[in-house]
Amino acid sequence: MIKRIALIGTGNVAEQLCRILLEKDFELVGVYSRTKESRNAFGIKWNIEVCTSFTEIEEKKPDLILIAVNDSVINSVSHSLEQNSVVVHTSGSIPISELRQTSRGVFYPLQTFSKEKKVDWSEVPICVEGSTPELTEELMNLGKSISKEVNEIDSEQRKYLHVSAVFACNFSNHMYAIAHKLMEEHQMDFEMLKPLIRETAEKIDSLAPQKAQTGPASRKDEKTMNDHLELLAESDNLRHLYGLISEQIIALQDGKKL
Amino acid sequence: MIKRIALIGTGNVAEQLCRILLEKDFELVGVYSRTKESRNAFGIKWNIEVCTSFTEIEEKKPDLILIAVNDSVINSVSHSLEQNSVVVHTSGSIPISELRQTSRGVFYPLQTFSKEKKVDWSEVPICVEGSTPELTEELMNLGKSISKEVNEIDSEQRKYLHVSAVFACNFSNHMYAIAHKLMEEHQMDFEMLKPLIRETAEKIDSLAPQKAQTGPASRKDEKTMNDHLELLAESDNLRHLYGLISEQIIALQDGKKL
Repeated sequence: MIKRIALIGTGNVAEQLCRILLEKDFELVGVYSRTKESRNAFGIKWNIEVCTSFTEIEEKKPDLILIAVNDSVINSVSHSLEQNSVVVHTSGSIPISELRQTSRGVFYPLQTFSKEKKVDWSEVPICVEGSTPELTEELMNLGKSISKEVNEIDSEQRKYLHVSAVFACNFSNHMYAIAHKLMEEHQMDFEMLKPLIRETAEKIDSLAPQKAQTGPASRKDEKTMNDHLELLAESDNLRHLYGLISEQIIALQDGKKL
Repeated sequence: MIKRIALIGTGNVAEQLCRILLEKDFELVGVYSRTKESRNAFGIKWNIEVCTSFTEIEEKKPDLILIAVNDSVINSVSHSLEQNSVVVHTSGSIPISELRQTSRGVFYPLQTFSKEKKVDWSEVPICVEGSTPELTEELMNLGKSISKEVNEIDSEQRKYLHVSAVFACNFSNHMYAIAHKLMEEHQMDFEMLKPLIRETAEKIDSLAPQKAQTGPASRKDEKTMNDHLELLAESDNLRHLYGLISEQIIALQDGKKL
């Protein structure tokens, strides 16, 4: 059973994972990150021993080394660790094969993490993959100890899960950012849009998003769409985006391919 | 004080407004819509007298005629009503000047309405505009009797509010629809994305959307963005949209104009 965990990385995911693992009585045996300041600050904040090298991490004899670092350095971190360590990364987009260890795995929490906001882990779907059925089971159990929703997802599926998540989260958030900007530019409070945003997100609990669609494009209301394009005259990029998404909404309504 | 209301239109907005007005003890003195079937069904469902013409609506001597019809026919409905009736439309995008009555106004509930889902009116921001200060005040009071959030918004501002709402609601919903499609195509359950969607919508309660942004574009992670574009190879439209939104997220991060 996994009990003693070492952590590499001190970013948003590392921090939120650390908090919940400590709450659930796992033993965090050490933390390492490249910069001295960040690992020291992290160690002090969470009362975890700070390691100053990959070797020191491995000398703690953890059951598992969790690497919660930028996607771009997962491969090189894996190469700095021993072949026989048990190494698991937390990324949505990196295949398990980028880890060089024999016992390797993925523990991907499907959520958006910010330092400023505490996440309710019990609601975070956790997607796991292990190099052996035994490790997969261990990771499933680790997941279940912090969340109600744990799924086995292989590297191929996870790639599509990740790009889906970018649309569902980052891109919908960008739509909020555009609305925020337009409201500010016209002396209105973004607060006014919040109930609408909440309702839009809640609606898909009971309706498929395509069925929940409303607005000028879904009504094929050309007049309103043209009026909106005129209002966006100052920004070619926004006009372009407005047109493209509206066309796609209409295509979906008509049962066409995107 | 407005007490006796006549309704023109039987769509989603008409239906949801009718429900809350009856709940709040307003008197719905009559309903009219172009097609016999829809007005009869509506009248039976809500126990309201069905009118068969605009004249019959006006003969009921309502304090207010609420027209909740498609944007494209608001003008012609207004022209079918007497000059001296008090007429108010519920549209976000149509200026007050499209009504020809002397006493005219707008009562725009800023929310997405579907027949299938009951809306919590107390949370719906209502944007009102009246042709006189007296009518504006009457409409403000009408708004306050059903919602906690009532604002006076003129026709010019409301146009920008409406296009902002399209981004915040319809376009973010389209991002969900794309994610839904991708998940289905790769044999994964859209349910898995729901906590992420909820969290993304909730996060902006405490953070401005731009600050809440995460994901490959906000990290300028070219490798992941290129991987995602490859995954979307089957659809030029989706690749195009992915590239465009990612560029805009990066531009916002860099403090550039959209």
